[in-house]
Amino acid sequence: MNSIKYYFDRVSEIFAEEKFVFEPKELYEPINYTLRLGGKRIRPTLLLAANALFGGEEAEARDAALGIETFHNFTLLHDDLMDRSPLRRGQPTVYTKWGDNTAILSGDTMFALAWRYFLRQPTPHLHEILQCFNETAIEVCEGQQKDMNFETMTLDEVSISDYMDMIRQKTAVLLAGALKIGSLYAGAPDKESAKLYEFGIHMGLAFQLQDDLLDGYGDTAVFGKKTGQDIRDNKKSYLPLAALNLCLPEQKKELTTLFSAKNNMNEEEKVHRVLELYNAINLRTKVEEAIASEFETANQCLNGIQASEELKKPLHEMMDSLNGRKK
Amino acid sequence: MNSIKYYFDRVSEIFAEEKFVFEPKELYEPINYTLRLGGKRIRPTLLLAANALFGGEEAEARDAALGIETFHNFTLLHDDLMDRSPLRRGQPTVYTKWGDNTAILSGDTMFALAWRYFLRQPTPHLHEILQCFNETAIEVCEGQQKDMNFETMTLDEVSISDYMDMIRQKTAVLLAGALKIGSLYAGAPDKESAKLYEFGIHMGLAFQLQDDLLDGYGDTAVFGKKTGQDIRDNKKSYLPLAALNLCLPEQKKELTTLFSAKNNMNEEEKVHRVLELYNAINLRTKVEEAIASEFETANQCLNGIQASEELKKPLHEMMDSLNGRKK
Repeated sequence: MNSIKYYFDRVSEIFAEEKFVFEPKELYEPINYTLRLGGKRIRPTLLLAANALFGGEEAEARDAALGIETFHNFTLLHDDLMDRSPLRRGQPTVYTKWGDNTAILSGDTMFALAWRYFLRQPTPHLHEILQCFNETAIEVCEGQQKDMNFETMTLDEVSISDYMDMIRQKTAVLLAGALKIGSLYAGAPDKESAKLYEFGIHMGLAFQLQDDLLDGYGDTAVFGKKTGQDIRDNKKSYLPLAALNLCLPEQKKELTTLFSAKNNMNEEEKVHRVLELYNAINLRTKVEEAIASEFETANQCLNGIQASEELKKPLHEMMDSLNGRKK
Repeated sequence: MNSIKYYFDRVSEIFAEEKFVFEPKELYEPINYTLRLGGKRIRPTLLLAANALFGGEEAEARDAALGIETFHNFTLLHDDLMDRSPLRRGQPTVYTKWGDNTAILSGDTMFALAWRYFLRQPTPHLHEILQCFNETAIEVCEGQQKDMNFETMTLDEVSISDYMDMIRQKTAVLLAGALKIGSLYAGAPDKESAKLYEFGIHMGLAFQLQDDLLDGYGDTAVFGKKTGQDIRDNKKSYLPLAALNLCLPEQKKELTTLFSAKNNMNEEEKVHRVLELYNAINLRTKVEEAIASEFETANQCLNGIQASEELKKPLHEMMDSLNGRKK
């Protein structure tokens, strides 16, 4: 049977076959640049694997795989502009290369191109598929806004539950949506699609919590980013929020101050002190437990799906590869 | 029978019945603000009138009317940000009120909300309707990029045909698309939908050429904008492009210089001199003839449609009201 690597390779081939440059080239070159940068292609890979899980034809779902990845890359393009991130996948971001206006307009066009892919082929479940895609897109926007709202709040104003709700919308729903859409193309029963969606949600939550953990405890050389950047940016990630629930009142006060904009401390000193506080309460283990728990829930959802164990294997492999990731 | 005013009033009622504020409010308040600002609501009004023209039920097309106007307002929101326009309909634009990032993200969300409206009700012609909407959206983005490309070009580098192609995409296709979508909801035959689309294209071209003319010759008090702003901005509108084709070689050179960024002339002196050149070649009459010609073509398209004359009346009224507009 096919491995997850098979679906990833298929996605790479599908992207290689596709043309992204049209007229006017000033609009499409940044789109082509973005879509050719690569990346992990997790969402279209999940979509194809979910389609195969319920006996779907790859030819029918391939355009949706292009669509979901084009949408994802559109959100990255606009997020990078909003966050003023100079690099993406080690390369200059679109706004640094072509300017803000190009980033806005090429991004908007990518969102429409995603729809073009979804609309390219008729399918019996079109209405349901498109509703799933669009409601997912709206949730991703809502999640991004909630993330932006956290920037102007103090650490003790953000609850763990608000944070989990934010990452569910910003990150998890798109993995879940990709899986559900793949299964809808194959005509999967609603109940099974729903279980697959839940699998995606918990895998997505685990994925994001891991990202948060790697910022504090990743190996810089492997992770590709400097450790502690979230701390320098006062980012209310899972780490400080979980720490706040675990530490003593005086530590709480210190942590909240450390994560406030007014803080005038030397940056590296601040990172050091925050990590010291984390270590004092054994935070790393606690976060690893939370991640393991999300992966375990995801695993249970996957096990509960009425489909062949052979065809579930690629999804187990995806989960394992995300679970073991160091970057 | 119903007048165009009837459809406009229906659009106002449909918007009044709709809720645009959801959570998080930081995302939806700018959307609500934008959609409540009003405006001429030309596109949803055309959509409902086109639907009625082929005997469609308003209840089936109403959500598409919301969708087309939400999309149009999304493009205005992002255009205002890209153009750094401080005012829209006499009110501060979203980016001046809430900042660039909110303008980007609330705009993105409006594009998705437009899709939500289109997807709210099942309809037998869903696939064709959504393809028409999406291809229209892509053309609007392409038109905006072409318009941005003109900014860095000299006057003699832009041809009239490039300009007409740009305004067709940036302005006309959305009027045409609204009409076609309205007719598709009513199950109009392809041939009739196509004629209605052409009607919209020529009405849209006339509409934009009129906008260009009003910039040079409008009554400031009525038009609501200061006369000559396109001249101050070196905007390659229909006026200087048509003038270039009509004037003598030495005038051509002067006009191209006047419309170049390097020009250090006093602004009002420049406006005065450009208008002097326009008047010397009787440009106003020539542009009025071009507008009349587009309206005449539009009229022929409308006359050629196989539908009741009574039901065509609102579309004739819309054309007449746009034809006579002073603002």
